[in-house]
Amino acid sequence: MADAALFEFLHTEMVAELWAHDPDPSPGGQKMSLSVLEGMGFRVGQALGERLPRETLAFREELDVLKFLCKDLWVAVFQKQMDSLRTNHQGTYVLQDNSFPLLVRMASGQQYLEEAPKFLAFTCGLLRGALSTLGIKSLVTASVAALPACKFQVVIQKS
Amino acid sequence: MADAALFEFLHTEMVAELWAHDPDPSPGGQKMSLSVLEGMGFRVGQALGERLPRETLAFREELDVLKFLCKDLWVAVFQKQMDSLRTNHQGTYVLQDNSFPLLVRMASGQQYLEEAPKFLAFTCGLLRGALSTLGIKSLVTASVAALPACKFQVVIQKS
Repeated sequence: MADAALFEFLHTEMVAELWAHDPDPSPGGQKMSLSVLEGMGFRVGQALGERLPRETLAFREELDVLKFLCKDLWVAVFQKQMDSLRTNHQGTYVLQDNSFPLLVRMASGQQYLEEAPKFLAFTCGLLRGALSTLGIKSLVTASVAALPACKFQVVIQKS
Repeated sequence: MADAALFEFLHTEMVAELWAHDPDPSPGGQKMSLSVLEGMGFRVGQALGERLPRETLAFREELDVLKFLCKDLWVAVFQKQMDSLRTNHQGTYVLQDNSFPLLVRMASGQQYLEEAPKFLAFTCGLLRGALSTLGIKSLVTASVAALPACKFQVVIQKS
């Protein structure tokens, strides 16, 4: 088990690095950096997913998989559980974290709200990657209404 | 405490990302990516250093600080201690890890030896950053003779 702060510091540096060398501050350039982060998250999520205990492979229901992410995966990465999980029972899930660790440091001022997407892209990818390893194709987006709370919306892609 | 694999996977992705988008495969371009990684390591090392227990601030001897890195810092990041620490008692220290975790995956073939520097730059920075927080200015380089063993050479910069 590594020091939890290591991941947090490294994540901060990745975000800073991607934006520091971003040659293109336009919405298109911003989108490119977000997609790089999301892609890194996806591959890390896939790899973490492969280390999940065997019994998880026996999950029958989509909902069980989502519950697993909210508990075990979240604890492995953020040392806490997701605060709530809701679903419309039609393939859309809303995972809410009332105090998302990667946003906590900037939560002192709501003026940072517009910076929040940078700090969510990696984790969106992480969820999508872990789901992918568990055989579920999805789209994951995140939104923030009041720092440091945030919601991840997972929409399952039926094939 | 976060899952130890998280750091390892994320580190692998950072290296892959920096080389994938490297517009310049020349030695100069390679050097640029290495220096970006080393810089990220430095800032993470500085931040980790600030979280060290108070008693470490009471270290009197340079050697005590180096021993601390080999034990506590290494365990926090890599879940193992450094295998040996040698010094010439003139400000140069050689820290040897006989099975460096970030090299273990590529240790199956010596043909990967030339790829090794990519996987050492971040950690060189990490050591330099932690030393910097503890008030010691240094130069840190790494070398590999036989995978997955490697040596970090720390040269203290007297001011």
